[in-house]
Amino acid sequence: MEQKQYKRKIYLEDKPRAEARDEILAAFLQTAEIETIPVVDALGRVTAEPIFAHVSMPHYHASAMDGIAVVAESTYQAHEQNPLYLKIGEQCCFVDTGNAIPSPFNAVIMIEYVHIVDDETIEIIEPATPWQHIRPIGEDIVQEEMLFSQGHTLRPADLGVLLAAQELMVPVVKKPVVAIIPTGNELVEAHADLSPGKIIEFNGTVFSGFVRDWGGEPRLHSIVKDEPEKIKEVLLKAAETSDIIVINAGSSAGRKDFTVHIIDEIGEVFTHGVAARPGKPVILGKINDKIVVGVPGYPVSAYLALEWFVQPLICKYLGIPVPKRQTVPVKLGRRIVSAMGAEDFIRMNIGFVNGQFVANPLTRAAGVTMSYVRADGLLIVPPNISGYEQGDTAEVELFKPLEEIKNAIVFSGSHDLTIDLLSSHLKRARTERKIVSSHVGSMAGIMAIRKGEAHVAGIHLLDPSTKQYNRSYVNKLLAGQDVVLYPFLKRKQGWILPQGNPLGIENVTDLVRTDANFVNRQKGAGTRILFDLLLDEAGLTADEINGYDREMFSHLAVAAEVKSDEHGAGLGIYPAAKAMGLDFIPVADEEYDLVMKREFYESDSGRQVIEIIQSPAFKEEVEKIGGYQVVEHAVPKRVTEEVENEDV
Amino acid sequence: MEQKQYKRKIYLEDKPRAEARDEILAAFLQTAEIETIPVVDALGRVTAEPIFAHVSMPHYHASAMDGIAVVAESTYQAHEQNPLYLKIGEQCCFVDTGNAIPSPFNAVIMIEYVHIVDDETIEIIEPATPWQHIRPIGEDIVQEEMLFSQGHTLRPADLGVLLAAQELMVPVVKKPVVAIIPTGNELVEAHADLSPGKIIEFNGTVFSGFVRDWGGEPRLHSIVKDEPEKIKEVLLKAAETSDIIVINAGSSAGRKDFTVHIIDEIGEVFTHGVAARPGKPVILGKINDKIVVGVPGYPVSAYLALEWFVQPLICKYLGIPVPKRQTVPVKLGRRIVSAMGAEDFIRMNIGFVNGQFVANPLTRAAGVTMSYVRADGLLIVPPNISGYEQGDTAEVELFKPLEEIKNAIVFSGSHDLTIDLLSSHLKRARTERKIVSSHVGSMAGIMAIRKGEAHVAGIHLLDPSTKQYNRSYVNKLLAGQDVVLYPFLKRKQGWILPQGNPLGIENVTDLVRTDANFVNRQKGAGTRILFDLLLDEAGLTADEINGYDREMFSHLAVAAEVKSDEHGAGLGIYPAAKAMGLDFIPVADEEYDLVMKREFYESDSGRQVIEIIQSPAFKEEVEKIGGYQVVEHAVPKRVTEEVENEDV
Repeated sequence: MEQKQYKRKIYLEDKPRAEARDEILAAFLQTAEIETIPVVDALGRVTAEPIFAHVSMPHYHASAMDGIAVVAESTYQAHEQNPLYLKIGEQCCFVDTGNAIPSPFNAVIMIEYVHIVDDETIEIIEPATPWQHIRPIGEDIVQEEMLFSQGHTLRPADLGVLLAAQELMVPVVKKPVVAIIPTGNELVEAHADLSPGKIIEFNGTVFSGFVRDWGGEPRLHSIVKDEPEKIKEVLLKAAETSDIIVINAGSSAGRKDFTVHIIDEIGEVFTHGVAARPGKPVILGKINDKIVVGVPGYPVSAYLALEWFVQPLICKYLGIPVPKRQTVPVKLGRRIVSAMGAEDFIRMNIGFVNGQFVANPLTRAAGVTMSYVRADGLLIVPPNISGYEQGDTAEVELFKPLEEIKNAIVFSGSHDLTIDLLSSHLKRARTERKIVSSHVGSMAGIMAIRKGEAHVAGIHLLDPSTKQYNRSYVNKLLAGQDVVLYPFLKRKQGWILPQGNPLGIENVTDLVRTDANFVNRQKGAGTRILFDLLLDEAGLTADEINGYDREMFSHLAVAAEVKSDEHGAGLGIYPAAKAMGLDFIPVADEEYDLVMKREFYESDSGRQVIEIIQSPAFKEEVEKIGGYQVVEHAVPKRVTEEVENEDV
Repeated sequence: MEQKQYKRKIYLEDKPRAEARDEILAAFLQTAEIETIPVVDALGRVTAEPIFAHVSMPHYHASAMDGIAVVAESTYQAHEQNPLYLKIGEQCCFVDTGNAIPSPFNAVIMIEYVHIVDDETIEIIEPATPWQHIRPIGEDIVQEEMLFSQGHTLRPADLGVLLAAQELMVPVVKKPVVAIIPTGNELVEAHADLSPGKIIEFNGTVFSGFVRDWGGEPRLHSIVKDEPEKIKEVLLKAAETSDIIVINAGSSAGRKDFTVHIIDEIGEVFTHGVAARPGKPVILGKINDKIVVGVPGYPVSAYLALEWFVQPLICKYLGIPVPKRQTVPVKLGRRIVSAMGAEDFIRMNIGFVNGQFVANPLTRAAGVTMSYVRADGLLIVPPNISGYEQGDTAEVELFKPLEEIKNAIVFSGSHDLTIDLLSSHLKRARTERKIVSSHVGSMAGIMAIRKGEAHVAGIHLLDPSTKQYNRSYVNKLLAGQDVVLYPFLKRKQGWILPQGNPLGIENVTDLVRTDANFVNRQKGAGTRILFDLLLDEAGLTADEINGYDREMFSHLAVAAEVKSDEHGAGLGIYPAAKAMGLDFIPVADEEYDLVMKREFYESDSGRQVIEIIQSPAFKEEVEKIGGYQVVEHAVPKRVTEEVENEDV
């Protein structure tokens, strides 16, 4: 048995994604069931047949105005010099918009052009032409006219047309039932307590949401253990009771990845592995004429695979085209490397800066759900391309409305917790703006401003020679650019240590002495520059620090690492330590400032940002966090002028 | 009392739309209620507060691969020439993707690079670096990190992130309750029998759909009669139980338009009339701090007014930006006239022909719901512009995905019932294509082909001199263009008459003799040309025909008119008469053919159209309608070659 566990196919196929999809679409032969439902419940449903009108609308000659109905031919003599008098009820009658035109009348004169002489008499001074201001029968809908073809997704106004045509019931395509089966011994329900190695089963809820959004009816199964017999039983049952089957995880080639063997045994496997990253380890097959899609456990892989294979199946069932996302050409802020022979799906942040769309890749790790959630779009690198150079233009599929991306303030540079707060306040004040931030570190933030890829950058860069913050970096790296350095915060940097400081660390020398597991920040981060300075001052080198190469991208990530390790230690800001209930020993009061192009600073967005920063509500909330002081009376300084004066 | 009815303000205000909107937004001061609901039910809901993570994800150091966990430092000697043997359970252990890394291990070697010697021993030939293939704590989500700001609309993957962070409940903004009050004595519920003057109440269902789509909670009231006391009572009740009030109709200045006076009495009126067409007669006001929006009764006016004023209120309540539609620049196929001083909202058909978007206005009548339903987009003419010339480029807001418009086959020319059938078959065969047709008549259809505004035109044009159909018109009007004239149908034209033919009409002379109410077709329609020829042959003139100027745009519309009038008569195709249960007396067997540019004919779309026309299923269905014969073995003819031969 032990032996058997290691006997497994390690390599998956690399089938082109489109080929794999077309195979299952061809094999998906379910006839869509039709259900006839009340029109009032049919919003968003898809018509199953062409719908013809049973009555015309209007179904009578209707007045299009408030006024009087007349026989046009009897008014031809009316003239300003020759007023015509009509007897109410005999030669004319009052009609309101929508009223039926009684026989024998065939025209309407607007009330504005009518003089009511008395209760019995009307005076007119202009003739009417036949059928004027009358909505003829069928002006809107003609009886027997086709209102909608089959495969039409019903929108609000469509329901009105159906009701107007006296269609109270409408035949729609039944929502295809998609069975969603989560498998894995490591999975626990979301309400369970978490022990190491346990993972909350959340993909099922996400899949259900996608299926619902795409027009299907999700049926989420409870978690199935990694037991072949159990999985087999559930799959066979699902093949009876649903139209499409999705089984999550076990789709790769691991020790417990039974799925492919089971499907092979009780059905047919078309594909095991597609030429796409992430999302490669997909299983596509068939059990008793029902298509089964085995998707990988990593969230991002799973969501992509679902979109590639399950959405087209649902759309085929409904008889609608697969919706396509809006695309936009973007300038790439970084070089992007892609393996030949497979498509690469790269989650991108997109900003609209200086009149162009600039995009940067988020992490490509398939397990990082937030990279999918935070992404503004998807760059799909075709299999025959090895990537793009920085500055290249590429087409990106949008996850969000273009408008939202255009309105976003792109924040780059160093991570600080107050930026989330700023974003929150901005959202509260003006709903259409929001901050999109990427934590790349202070140096990269300055470069993003220089390259026109961000509106604002947060920096805290200590100059080892002057012991001053930020100014010299901006002067040097943004020389000749019209930028503003905006003093924002003073904040406490210090040692982040496990509760009670078990190793007794008080300075950088103690790190070496105790062989603590240090957690560093990435290159270019202000905190790392501070750490290097501390090392230098203590006469130490990076080699002597255990964990120097272990890089985290935020203060919170450092704190989280320290929290999990009795021998851990990190350098970071006070609020991060506080948030995790860790010890904190202050090292420096540093200046965390904002850099922005003057053009942005003076724009509506820029002014809103400054207004919020200067508001008492914001300051109060920031200082309540602890370890922060918002710079009072922050007046922008013209960096470029200084640069000129200093003759850099 | 009678007297009082006529005392009313006839003219409405012409307030700029944006000004009217900003006024009610400023007056809309409801604090959004927050409800905390299970994450699994929160799809599409809007976060009410910033959401922070309670746990990290992973919450332990997790293996990113299937393989073995090792202490990296103990593997540094491993080399191909110097294999290292590790004892399972002591110096290494098996881990699958997602498993926790047990202490003291700090690296993972992928299973592919591992040789399992026996149950107790592993051989490796490459060293591991510390932390390789390990997902550090918080790689995805760091505890205390802000996951979402408030005002975030939750998508499927967002639910996953919340669950992963062990947020089982989420605070969302309550959906604002929108009371929808239909008023009018002419309204009846959709299931009621219709008598003239009665209108089915369908706007309420449409409004409910819009409100739902925009994130609100509609409360549709039953129909309220035009009685001021009753309306007052319902409005006051709604102001207590809902967040926003919509009252339909009675918003203009008609005899029974009490609404504005009632709101004025029990609340405050901000606006009565905006500078926009259609949609002008809008009432905006306030009752007990609740905003009330009075919208006009005409469907299109109502839908626009709802979008202008109710959607922004809902979005303000939810704390989200008002979504904007995608826009696209289009070439205008026709001249568009617009009154100065008011915005004009013109429903447009948009086609993608010869690589550009071409748009034509649909009817501007506010009562024609189908014009809103059929529209691909909206052209908004600003108040300071008097319109556009044919061929101008203008920006149009899209009602449909761009992709759908790009895939549509634009059908122009004469109306025939089989075109709907063709559309239906096309939809069934290939879900991404569909036919968008405008009934402009044969001549206009030919011109649309000439101007590159349509892919296909249906024509049936009799040449009075040769008594032949279509050929001579194409040769003359499309001379020099590479087009295909595709013989499609033979169909029966004849007199459409009330059942039993009460006037005993058998020919055109009988129309004059009996003074029948003739219903004509529009200029350029093939049927009108046929009628003119019949007149000419009989030695009659248009003046002698009662109703000659009364123009309908389709066969069905003619039939519907005839059906409503004992003295009616029209000329049209057999199936239209049959559909309405009318008498039909054949006059001519005419040829209804298709004209298309060769480029389209030879394209994928073109070939699909021809394939369907030639399919036995289509032919059978067409001929079953009656009065039709599909041309057998239809072989396309090269019109241009003929044109050259004929030396036109």
